[in-house]
Amino acid sequence: MKKLVLLGSTGSIGTNTLRLVTDFPDRFRVVGLTAGRNGDKLLGQIRRFRPRCVALADPAAAERLRRQCRDLPDLRNPGIEVLSGIEGLVRVATLADADLVVSAIVGSAGLVPTFEAIRAKKTMALANKEPLVMAGSILQQEARRQGITLLPVDSEHSAIFQSMSGQRRRDVRRLILTASGGPLLDLPVRKRRVIKPAQALRHPVWRMGSKISIDSATLMNKGLEVIEAHWLFDMPPDRIDVVIHRQSIVHSMVEYLDGSVIAQMGVPDMRGPLAYALNYPERLPLGLPALDLTRVRSLTFEPPDLKKFPCLGFAYEAIKIGGTLPAVLNAANEVAVRAYLEERIGFLEIARLIRKTMDAHVPLAVKSLEDVLEADRWGRERASKSVGEKE
Amino acid sequence: MKKLVLLGSTGSIGTNTLRLVTDFPDRFRVVGLTAGRNGDKLLGQIRRFRPRCVALADPAAAERLRRQCRDLPDLRNPGIEVLSGIEGLVRVATLADADLVVSAIVGSAGLVPTFEAIRAKKTMALANKEPLVMAGSILQQEARRQGITLLPVDSEHSAIFQSMSGQRRRDVRRLILTASGGPLLDLPVRKRRVIKPAQALRHPVWRMGSKISIDSATLMNKGLEVIEAHWLFDMPPDRIDVVIHRQSIVHSMVEYLDGSVIAQMGVPDMRGPLAYALNYPERLPLGLPALDLTRVRSLTFEPPDLKKFPCLGFAYEAIKIGGTLPAVLNAANEVAVRAYLEERIGFLEIARLIRKTMDAHVPLAVKSLEDVLEADRWGRERASKSVGEKE
Repeated sequence: MKKLVLLGSTGSIGTNTLRLVTDFPDRFRVVGLTAGRNGDKLLGQIRRFRPRCVALADPAAAERLRRQCRDLPDLRNPGIEVLSGIEGLVRVATLADADLVVSAIVGSAGLVPTFEAIRAKKTMALANKEPLVMAGSILQQEARRQGITLLPVDSEHSAIFQSMSGQRRRDVRRLILTASGGPLLDLPVRKRRVIKPAQALRHPVWRMGSKISIDSATLMNKGLEVIEAHWLFDMPPDRIDVVIHRQSIVHSMVEYLDGSVIAQMGVPDMRGPLAYALNYPERLPLGLPALDLTRVRSLTFEPPDLKKFPCLGFAYEAIKIGGTLPAVLNAANEVAVRAYLEERIGFLEIARLIRKTMDAHVPLAVKSLEDVLEADRWGRERASKSVGEKE
Repeated sequence: MKKLVLLGSTGSIGTNTLRLVTDFPDRFRVVGLTAGRNGDKLLGQIRRFRPRCVALADPAAAERLRRQCRDLPDLRNPGIEVLSGIEGLVRVATLADADLVVSAIVGSAGLVPTFEAIRAKKTMALANKEPLVMAGSILQQEARRQGITLLPVDSEHSAIFQSMSGQRRRDVRRLILTASGGPLLDLPVRKRRVIKPAQALRHPVWRMGSKISIDSATLMNKGLEVIEAHWLFDMPPDRIDVVIHRQSIVHSMVEYLDGSVIAQMGVPDMRGPLAYALNYPERLPLGLPALDLTRVRSLTFEPPDLKKFPCLGFAYEAIKIGGTLPAVLNAANEVAVRAYLEERIGFLEIARLIRKTMDAHVPLAVKSLEDVLEADRWGRERASKSVGEKE
């Protein structure tokens, strides 16, 4: 029986994790949950999974939840500890009896709880890429120090992890990340100016949250994945390639020095990589539809067009230069995507805003988490200011 | 330094193995070579690789080679031992100082030397499928008893072997063998009657010997591979699928119980799987062109048509019934392919001859190698008689 903590339990990864807990009740037990401000959804999860301890980032929402838990007869005995704020998230992330922590908080907010869970020697299932993008060197250093494994949950990184299984690391020549291309792949550049969020959110394959859906439309998501892959697999960025694969059947590949390529495939369903990380190294009979390649008939591969998708190039640039630049790239992207979703800027301005913020930044070496958080703050402020000037 | 013995050194696998020995002189040394009757080619290989001991199956060819070796000044010191017949092949196959034996004799002639090499506790690189098809239970039993590994050299089985690396055997749900479909894939059944050997030999992807090229045109090759996979990976035939994949880029796949599929890909070049087996578990930098999927653009998959390719169905039938039937299938196929290559029967008669021979056989349990050899003799006689009746 594995005892789980879920950081970000009300999001898309969180609810899929809880589905797996429901499907395999003799494998997993939930001991802690955290969310941002969605107390109602968290309350439902509490009643169903009875964790010992939960936290909401938002203090007011936490206070409301605390009262509800006190007033509901079915939750009184044993009582649920309801914590709040970043300290609360960290408390849940480091619960003494947790075996595995699923890190699925959207955006940079997941960084500190993820870092603290690693410091507390928890095996990590990493579903949010921002912590690694922002502070990969710090997190990997700490993971090595604690001797714990960072298990990827992103389908691409899970595919690479699975394709490296039983292979010698030094035989790896190249990682090949596949990208569906998102909903705007075939749209000419001149038509991108007027793309509304509703259209950009319409991902052809995956059902995901709004932030990551926009990141898929700009291919920034793939850029962040390149940075994530760099840290997870200790691979220089010039040996990480991206290839457009519309069917999202091949989830990613690893090329070895003898020319052999190992690929992991499957029907696109995030429970696949999620269950692989949760139950590693054993696989679970998930009951997903089997992949029938004779029905898919054809798998296609194209090079990505960096003119159409400048954000992908920015990410390569950020990780090649390194230091605080990836954190600034990520901060500017978060500000830009939010501004776009709120229709304060147009689609093409997402990339422009990131470019402008990166150009204004003087990258510094990263020695501590504080350096990263400072760069994140700087990037957010700078990008927000640029959005303000636009309005 | 690995010391190699090559059974079948003058064929296509043999010469490719020697190319690898030439390319990696500090990894491999040749201590023994065997061939059928091509003494001239073997002499060239002797002068270049200086094995201690060689054998030719054909006694007259061996006697001629023995004289040549005695007369050539450069081969006199140290002398080369030239053996002959089945005993000679077995002597070379079991040389005391050999670390790895490459079994690459075409057809059933490889069975006894392969069995004896396993009995002598040699790690085996299996390039000829017939021994496993004929006597899989016997060979696997002996390999287990000796605690040695049977390393596949066929690209399909190497792909499966690589796709299982680091995975738990009991998590495997299905093996998926890919087949290029051979040169006659799109030819309607009614036009198959008049296919000449020259046309059937024209394989779209692989350069191979004539026996295996015809087997590819009938898809019997894939059927034999199903039987081989059954024995190599201990998988029931109803969990081994065949899919037509014209590009021969995906060399085969393994499906796991969570729905995940691991595939091994690469440019089609037999040095890939060959080098993997020779140097297992380390990969070698072969200098093969890298696989660029954006140039291939599209990988296609189709179900095989058993009406067009009845031999594939015969092979499934043979392994499901088991006992001596696979050996009879193989014997009838060898006789039929030879008769076709000598233009004594037409293309469609290959399948008919095999069907007729199988129907006439009463399968028996296999308890010893002798049972297999007896079934092989029976199958050959019966099939030859049918060819004779045709003429």
